[in-house]
Amino acid sequence: MTIKSRAAVAFGPNQPLQIVEVDVAPPKAGEVLVRIVATGVCHTDAYTLSGEDSEGVFPCILGHEGGGIVEAVGEGVTSVAVGDHVIPLYTAECRQCKFCKSGKTNLCSSVRATQGKGLMPDGTTRFSYKGEPIYHYMGTSTFSEYTVLPEVSVAKIPKEAPLDKVCLLGCGVTTGIGAVINTAKVEEGATVAIFGLGGIGLAAIIGAKMAKASRIIAIDINPAKFPIAEALGATDFVNPKEHAKPIQDVIIEMTDGGVDYSFECVGNVQLMRAALECAHKGWGESVIIGVAGAGQEISTRPFQLVTGRVWRGSAFGGVKGRTELPSYVEKAQKGEIPLDTFITHNMGLEEINDAFDLMHEGKSIRTVIHF
Amino acid sequence: MTIKSRAAVAFGPNQPLQIVEVDVAPPKAGEVLVRIVATGVCHTDAYTLSGEDSEGVFPCILGHEGGGIVEAVGEGVTSVAVGDHVIPLYTAECRQCKFCKSGKTNLCSSVRATQGKGLMPDGTTRFSYKGEPIYHYMGTSTFSEYTVLPEVSVAKIPKEAPLDKVCLLGCGVTTGIGAVINTAKVEEGATVAIFGLGGIGLAAIIGAKMAKASRIIAIDINPAKFPIAEALGATDFVNPKEHAKPIQDVIIEMTDGGVDYSFECVGNVQLMRAALECAHKGWGESVIIGVAGAGQEISTRPFQLVTGRVWRGSAFGGVKGRTELPSYVEKAQKGEIPLDTFITHNMGLEEINDAFDLMHEGKSIRTVIHF
Repeated sequence: MTIKSRAAVAFGPNQPLQIVEVDVAPPKAGEVLVRIVATGVCHTDAYTLSGEDSEGVFPCILGHEGGGIVEAVGEGVTSVAVGDHVIPLYTAECRQCKFCKSGKTNLCSSVRATQGKGLMPDGTTRFSYKGEPIYHYMGTSTFSEYTVLPEVSVAKIPKEAPLDKVCLLGCGVTTGIGAVINTAKVEEGATVAIFGLGGIGLAAIIGAKMAKASRIIAIDINPAKFPIAEALGATDFVNPKEHAKPIQDVIIEMTDGGVDYSFECVGNVQLMRAALECAHKGWGESVIIGVAGAGQEISTRPFQLVTGRVWRGSAFGGVKGRTELPSYVEKAQKGEIPLDTFITHNMGLEEINDAFDLMHEGKSIRTVIHF
Repeated sequence: MTIKSRAAVAFGPNQPLQIVEVDVAPPKAGEVLVRIVATGVCHTDAYTLSGEDSEGVFPCILGHEGGGIVEAVGEGVTSVAVGDHVIPLYTAECRQCKFCKSGKTNLCSSVRATQGKGLMPDGTTRFSYKGEPIYHYMGTSTFSEYTVLPEVSVAKIPKEAPLDKVCLLGCGVTTGIGAVINTAKVEEGATVAIFGLGGIGLAAIIGAKMAKASRIIAIDINPAKFPIAEALGATDFVNPKEHAKPIQDVIIEMTDGGVDYSFECVGNVQLMRAALECAHKGWGESVIIGVAGAGQEISTRPFQLVTGRVWRGSAFGGVKGRTELPSYVEKAQKGEIPLDTFITHNMGLEEINDAFDLMHEGKSIRTVIHF
């Protein structure tokens, strides 16, 4: 039976979201209906809303950093039941496809093709407004009180965990920590440079601290971020605006040749180059986490790689959502991942456009929207 | 005591080498005098001779793929003695520097700074002609019957090995095999694409065969190379000129999503991009071996890395010369590295300019110069 759901709908690019009541069709086979309790607002939502994202389709319901409760399950669903607490996954984990079976990546391909088009795996949408279809977004659409997801796109988590905090593990925080732990596999004593101290960069600091890095260099043009970075474990602070020379040269000088690992957490292709080039000759590895604008390219001299640097990337921190996300929730519960540091604002759904404004103005790390 | 030596001197960029008798000063402390028995002629020699190499200094004695016999040792030399057979190393191995001690790279820094300037570690040159200094090249200068090298820049090898064959292990052959075995660590059953079937590319095929790759795709615009590639173990052959679509798309289609490992063995930055982009999403790794022209840059969309591809490079195949090169000589002695396949021509030093011509015309894999 179709239900009514309050939702923030993006009717077109570059317009404020509109809070309306949409219709949500019941979950089909292999799908679940989730009531979202809380959701973060992330830069990727803003990127798609801006119209720059070539995969963006409108009208749609954005949001991909949520926490919720299963309200209904479709035919054949076995891994979750009504009442289970879940985190929606924009990177599914089917455990059946070539990617999942490889053991080498978290980039499950099971629902990728339809998800990229704003559709459920059967090629249709569960959302509509006044009889017209509304598209899904990243397979999650957490800016709706009720949303439908493939079963493979939800991670079951303990009921004790507060959904209005652990929702942040649905994207940024897990991405930053996972890039350090899973993708780069930073080892004890290593030196680390983190470019950009938004949610992902701050989370990468937590990851580097967990990995017992000996030196964690935090880099941002906004020095107001440095005290937060320090509280999380950063040891050195660099504001590129205070240096005339290229930032990679500054880091190389500070570290007698470069860092063992660097992380780009902004989505700026020039910074991606700087991050690679400040990695130590012979073994330094640089991981791209930020999402660059459509059509933008990275470049460097091949000599940078021939002399031993490695260039990687990371999506959702290399984390397999259904298998590994529960352990992130546990770490948050134990205080090893201080989620409160990330939550600078709490709001109701009606105020969601204010959350975007705060983010654009650099005044928030994360705003959590409570339904 | 200064000795006389026949040598092919590059008096200036883009000029034929001149065969003259140069003066060679005796080895200083920590140095060895080596009589070169044979040397290969490699594209890197031609690159520097062309004047494009920003590190090139003239007049100099080129050559870096040699085999010889120690004729004298300077004060304090302990690891080799007069009469030892050696392969000169353009990548030294001092076992003392930060790089050697790291265990993570073969890029020893001990003599790097002076080597790049065409000088011995004390900042002077051992070669002169009519009283004017002649510069060293890559720390090896194997186009001279007698040459002086730092002790850390020679690998001692068994006397049974024929120097006019194993000299090729001083560069191209080891570089190609090592990039596959040491840098990429290709595992049994993996799929591999090799771009460019010159000496390095053909050696990479040998490496992939040693690693028991399940599929070895050989790519070249000169189909005359395919029978040689097949004899060495390649399983598939692609001539980009026979395809309208980008070569990365051809390889992706052939392999249902891309290869596990790709190797660029030409030095063409467009091909480096193609090699990266034909690597499989989620885990494919691409290794740059070829040396690009001065100032040229590689580029790609960062999404290629964020979706799991890894971009690396390799210098001298990641091989630590003094420690590991003897095992390559052993493999060649056992027939596991068929060096004869690479030696298409043999000449005397007087004909060395013909060897460059053959190489430029694509008519040789390697010419070995016999003193």
